[in-house]
Amino acid sequence: MEAPEKGVPLSTKLSKHGQNGVIQPLLTDLYQITMAYAYWKSQKYEDTAVFDLFFRRNPFRGEFTIFAGLEECIKFLEHFHYTTDDIEYLRTILPPTTEEEFFEFLHNLTAKDVIVYAVDEGSVVFPRVPIIRLEGPLPVVQLLETTLLNLVNYASLVATNAARFRLAAGQDKQLLEFGLRRAQGPDGGLSASRYCYIGGFDGTSNVLAGKLFDIPVKGTHAHAFVTSYEKLDDVHERTMTAKDGSKTVDFVSLCEQKLEELSKVLGFPIDQVHMGELAAFVSYARAFPTGFLALLDTYDVMKSGVHNFCAVCLALHDLGYRPVGVRLDSGDLAYLSLLLRERFKKVAEKFNLDWFGKLTIVASNDIDEDTIHSLNQQGHSIDAYGIGTHLVTCKKQPALGCVYKLVEINGLARIKLSQDVEKVTTPGKKVAYRLFGSDGNALLDLMTQSEEEPPKVKERVLCRHPFVESKRAYVIPAYVECLHKLYWKDGQVQQPLPKMKEIKERALASLNKLRPDHKRALNPTPYKVSVSDQLYNFMHDLWLDNAPIGELS
Amino acid sequence: MEAPEKGVPLSTKLSKHGQNGVIQPLLTDLYQITMAYAYWKSQKYEDTAVFDLFFRRNPFRGEFTIFAGLEECIKFLEHFHYTTDDIEYLRTILPPTTEEEFFEFLHNLTAKDVIVYAVDEGSVVFPRVPIIRLEGPLPVVQLLETTLLNLVNYASLVATNAARFRLAAGQDKQLLEFGLRRAQGPDGGLSASRYCYIGGFDGTSNVLAGKLFDIPVKGTHAHAFVTSYEKLDDVHERTMTAKDGSKTVDFVSLCEQKLEELSKVLGFPIDQVHMGELAAFVSYARAFPTGFLALLDTYDVMKSGVHNFCAVCLALHDLGYRPVGVRLDSGDLAYLSLLLRERFKKVAEKFNLDWFGKLTIVASNDIDEDTIHSLNQQGHSIDAYGIGTHLVTCKKQPALGCVYKLVEINGLARIKLSQDVEKVTTPGKKVAYRLFGSDGNALLDLMTQSEEEPPKVKERVLCRHPFVESKRAYVIPAYVECLHKLYWKDGQVQQPLPKMKEIKERALASLNKLRPDHKRALNPTPYKVSVSDQLYNFMHDLWLDNAPIGELS
Repeated sequence: MEAPEKGVPLSTKLSKHGQNGVIQPLLTDLYQITMAYAYWKSQKYEDTAVFDLFFRRNPFRGEFTIFAGLEECIKFLEHFHYTTDDIEYLRTILPPTTEEEFFEFLHNLTAKDVIVYAVDEGSVVFPRVPIIRLEGPLPVVQLLETTLLNLVNYASLVATNAARFRLAAGQDKQLLEFGLRRAQGPDGGLSASRYCYIGGFDGTSNVLAGKLFDIPVKGTHAHAFVTSYEKLDDVHERTMTAKDGSKTVDFVSLCEQKLEELSKVLGFPIDQVHMGELAAFVSYARAFPTGFLALLDTYDVMKSGVHNFCAVCLALHDLGYRPVGVRLDSGDLAYLSLLLRERFKKVAEKFNLDWFGKLTIVASNDIDEDTIHSLNQQGHSIDAYGIGTHLVTCKKQPALGCVYKLVEINGLARIKLSQDVEKVTTPGKKVAYRLFGSDGNALLDLMTQSEEEPPKVKERVLCRHPFVESKRAYVIPAYVECLHKLYWKDGQVQQPLPKMKEIKERALASLNKLRPDHKRALNPTPYKVSVSDQLYNFMHDLWLDNAPIGELS
Repeated sequence: MEAPEKGVPLSTKLSKHGQNGVIQPLLTDLYQITMAYAYWKSQKYEDTAVFDLFFRRNPFRGEFTIFAGLEECIKFLEHFHYTTDDIEYLRTILPPTTEEEFFEFLHNLTAKDVIVYAVDEGSVVFPRVPIIRLEGPLPVVQLLETTLLNLVNYASLVATNAARFRLAAGQDKQLLEFGLRRAQGPDGGLSASRYCYIGGFDGTSNVLAGKLFDIPVKGTHAHAFVTSYEKLDDVHERTMTAKDGSKTVDFVSLCEQKLEELSKVLGFPIDQVHMGELAAFVSYARAFPTGFLALLDTYDVMKSGVHNFCAVCLALHDLGYRPVGVRLDSGDLAYLSLLLRERFKKVAEKFNLDWFGKLTIVASNDIDEDTIHSLNQQGHSIDAYGIGTHLVTCKKQPALGCVYKLVEINGLARIKLSQDVEKVTTPGKKVAYRLFGSDGNALLDLMTQSEEEPPKVKERVLCRHPFVESKRAYVIPAYVECLHKLYWKDGQVQQPLPKMKEIKERALASLNKLRPDHKRALNPTPYKVSVSDQLYNFMHDLWLDNAPIGELS
């Protein structure tokens, strides 16, 4: 997608990138509509409210989160409108006492009077800091809640999960998302592919996601492909032409010869090699001579799969083609990958084919983040991971608890108290900054009241823990980034919305500015989110004002 | 949806019920397409294959699964077709060596030569038994794999989860799905609402799901609604008319009077009662006089919420309206519900209003299946549960491992061996039956080869454990149900597809025929899935034929 100019409506440009086309405003909880009616009935519809969208804890026992889903949110705002059909349906579920004028009011609603500040999509974000701040007519801003939460929650969760897999695997490995069959239905699968790519994956198996979001699509063959061949005669077309067109040979016979040759050179018995598997590999290589990557574990990896694979590779080489590698989908992945690498190197040496030792090994059996850490500890020779269930379902923690809280109404701050301090909201309209040290790393995030002066470079700023009075420190930032940017005003998009690839790059850059101890898998150091002295005092005064009489709170 | 006549295409009738409209065949893994090309290249495209779709283990450490997603699968088959646009995209991701005729072949593919047998949607199903059996041209049936798995996996998982919540709560409680904000994106939320309803929920908060699938929609108000009111003056419209139209009163003042009256009668201090909360309740009651249900825990349930609620109820009663009840979203739900019930009974007695003691108490704070069992043990007075995150994300086990395995090709059975016995497939085309005892309960499921005679009522049939030779028994069924029905043939739907409500009723009826010990939450008894003697022998002979030489397997 091209970045639109400031103020240019996105409708046409975004339409191709929406998963479902436009997200309907009825995709919400009924209570948003009933509340809107109650506001309307007591003439509170012109009240101006500020809501913060944020989460309280990083997922996966980690200390960071990647924010994703903003483009879909902005698109939702752009198209926010109840159709006549929607209104007709609402008439059937609201009580008959509901006044007709309310339906007219709903029918005329748009998001044009809403002002949205947000953190850039792909940024690393932390608990309590508003990711999106919305300001506008109370009923309208309230009506947006569920849909925005839906669009941000899973997107950010799965992008964060993907980023964690990337941190575990390292930048030099290929990571492929294979989760479509285990996702929450068709669109769950599309969301997964889209946001895993942003979080650091290189590609997906999901063809439609590739088409819609321009993500590289990857895939080879399944066990069923191998078992569908029983013998070499099942390959009905035997010939193959060399890459340079110089010759056409009986490829089936050539592969058989190579297998015999290998058997002699390496000294393995040929009677345990499955001929159906060889037929499948031959057939696959004929179809994809420049992209031959074979699944080795339908029968026995080291007694059958690897022999058939190497035979087909040597035959392809004779015709001028370079094979790609293998995939393992079961067994001891660390051990098997090392055995395979050893074998590939041996073939490389015996046949004087340097590239043979460097063939790609893909692993794909129910891999989670911990598996990758464990493989790294054991030592392995895997080049790429295909990851499905654990990635897309976020099995380790399948929900990010984003919330949407009222923080101001008609210019008056609101605080939501709770016996659980973690659940007390930060009142009023706020702006967040990220303060960086001279080494380029992020030091902390600082929330201020919206009218405060921004913290300045090379000037000390008092940063306070939001709840613990004694926890405070002066910080002198080498660089200050304002996290909140104006994204939506006057019914128009106010920032260029970047391409998926740019969001992906931002996620990587944003993570790179985070100290390694915040990112480590085990017991990471919490990143500090602080408040300004002014916000601290404001918050605690308001807290005291609202404390129930006769109670310590 | 009306049940169509046999053989009538469903396109128009289904369109309204599809979540996304038509599910595109590109919603698949790339390897399905690369395999199709390899089959095409080696002229295997006319081979006839049989695939079984099944799972290996019940989810949630349970011993049953509810099958859901069939209607979406059938609809997908009906519309299965690669558009010109799809083909153009595939051209960009397949290697340039891919032959042009293959794209033509793909472009002309439909599912008309595929025959589908399936278990009825909503039925209880068990591991290893094919839920869907597909027969047809190898590349076509292979191409359907990922999409069918995607459509069945989450649908069945979440329907099963819903059924477990229903078993925990009992039939007399109301269960409401509130999970939209935590689902996997927009369509994940729709799938959740749809299949939770099938699994036993009474309604959803998701308005669009209500509209698309005709599910009852429920909801009241949020904490933000309460905090948006600070004082009684925030209610700009004060009047309210009696139900019978006989009088119009200052409703705000009436509620204030009732609060004072209650304070005197019950003896509680009024200075701890939050007037903003009272304003919110007044406002909500004005909007929904016949559906007044208030969220009590924004401030203090027993010091503020319950007093304001009771005051508004008494005022509504004066005007001839009957309030509905309360919602609790935090705290000790069992304890608070009992306190509330006690209070409601006291008010009922003091004001001689019998219905007051029976007001509905809804609980909704991060509830999972175990919470409900724990509440039952503690004793509580909750009438309805609103359940979100744990239900829709299936946090306890966020994926059902449905697989799609080749079991026959060109009339020859295929077996997939594995060192893990659980992963060995049951070869060949099979039919499954459910055998019932004279008490009406299901005894076991029996798989037979497709050409075998069905088991007969009141005749003994030998049922064997699929792997353990010594485990076998003669069973004399009082009733036999064939689980596999023809659903798709000659490009036409072959069974009436029931309405959602009928599927829901089937799920309940199917579960009711399962012995309680299979359904209990802790250590349920496994339900037996057996094979006929003929299938047992066939399977083990084939296993032996395929065993690697020189190994015990």
